[in-house]
Amino acid sequence: MPNKRPLILISNDDGYQAGGLKALIEAARQYGDLLVVAPAEGQSGMSHALTVKTPIRVDKHIEEQGFTLYVCSGTPCDCIKIALNRLVPVKPDLLLTGVNHGANSSASVLYSGTMAAAIEGCMYGIPAIGFSLLEHSPFADFSPYIKYMQTIIEKIIKYGLRNGSCLNVNIPKIQVDNIRGIRICRQGRGYWEEEFVHRKDPNNRDYYWLTGDFFNEEPDADDTDEWALKNNYISIVPVQIDMTCYQSIDRMKEIFNT
Amino acid sequence: MPNKRPLILISNDDGYQAGGLKALIEAARQYGDLLVVAPAEGQSGMSHALTVKTPIRVDKHIEEQGFTLYVCSGTPCDCIKIALNRLVPVKPDLLLTGVNHGANSSASVLYSGTMAAAIEGCMYGIPAIGFSLLEHSPFADFSPYIKYMQTIIEKIIKYGLRNGSCLNVNIPKIQVDNIRGIRICRQGRGYWEEEFVHRKDPNNRDYYWLTGDFFNEEPDADDTDEWALKNNYISIVPVQIDMTCYQSIDRMKEIFNT
Repeated sequence: MPNKRPLILISNDDGYQAGGLKALIEAARQYGDLLVVAPAEGQSGMSHALTVKTPIRVDKHIEEQGFTLYVCSGTPCDCIKIALNRLVPVKPDLLLTGVNHGANSSASVLYSGTMAAAIEGCMYGIPAIGFSLLEHSPFADFSPYIKYMQTIIEKIIKYGLRNGSCLNVNIPKIQVDNIRGIRICRQGRGYWEEEFVHRKDPNNRDYYWLTGDFFNEEPDADDTDEWALKNNYISIVPVQIDMTCYQSIDRMKEIFNT
Repeated sequence: MPNKRPLILISNDDGYQAGGLKALIEAARQYGDLLVVAPAEGQSGMSHALTVKTPIRVDKHIEEQGFTLYVCSGTPCDCIKIALNRLVPVKPDLLLTGVNHGANSSASVLYSGTMAAAIEGCMYGIPAIGFSLLEHSPFADFSPYIKYMQTIIEKIIKYGLRNGSCLNVNIPKIQVDNIRGIRICRQGRGYWEEEFVHRKDPNNRDYYWLTGDFFNEEPDADDTDEWALKNNYISIVPVQIDMTCYQSIDRMKEIFNT
């Protein structure tokens, strides 16, 4: 009798040893056979970066019944690409990424390796969900939130997603009993107010280190992911591959007389 | 009398020595004072990657009347961030990126460092245009296309862009006289059919190298950038920061009973 269990592909951007990945594996294990392909090291802020100038390596670390873990030298996108091209026996039924250590709400979706990996999957027609917890600590306890993650996974297994879209799920770091539920949102408008710390190295050469805080441009809008998280909801933003600004098309045609 | 010339910020992802950057500088010079902040090395496929785990360095290479060039050790996004945070005397009036050596049409917008740098600028309210030529050669001759680039720059200086959007301009690599004009398009639907070349290193360890071809999922649609380029037009896609899939919001609310 053929094995009919769904195949679930999993990746992240904090590396194969991250606590968030372990929580995601725990959350997903009951729904199918897991193929995990995760970066060897943390790849935060790598967005959709691809390794093109150097080769990548991928090594099998764990192989058990229903669970295989590969470690990849590349970026989160590389993990998905090599998995789909070289490692999967069949096209995966579902792609899960995360759980990211830190928020990927609002404009952070553009910088996030976790979400880039999810978007990469939906480019190939695989329903994909990226999870993030608003807590940077490597020792964060993800376990209280697993039941919410499972609710979301079950819904998407049952109902699927629109072609060319995936989900960006962010979980507030509060006592799980204080979570008010799940809220479907749009991506909030905002940006990072960067600051570059300026220092001198031991050879007296200048260097700069990126830091900064997120600035919410529309704090009063109650349909954004930022609002939901601030008000103790889990935010879900459906995200699409198509970045066309359709509202600009007519105006541009006018300007360019085309 | 104060200097009233516009300030134009310029960056790219092929590095400060790239021919495409030189062409963009030549195209832009007559419209204002140029501040160029470009990566030290090629950063193709870096998307919105940010350097967060290590510091970055930035060195002034050229300073002339109306033209300053800095070389930055980081990614294209790092270049824009450090420029806006540390190097600009005032907020730039315009941001130009490229000219990229190779296409950034369709889904490539997600992987492109050139377009990430442009999107980064529009996040801070600066009108931004990313240019690409469909020719990977480092020796490509960009000069025949400068007049088209100038037409586009002039239109945007005059009319501006919708807040939260920028332009993705791709130029076909054909004799300039055969270009049929400029066409406003949407982002075509497609993906890369990857192949990983598999080899053994001198120590007999496996390695993989990413390669592949673009697959157009809708070759007959005549409103995409892919169609325009194939039919000898310069394609312009207005691109937005907001990745929300609005068409999924109602369905997701239904599924999650929210």
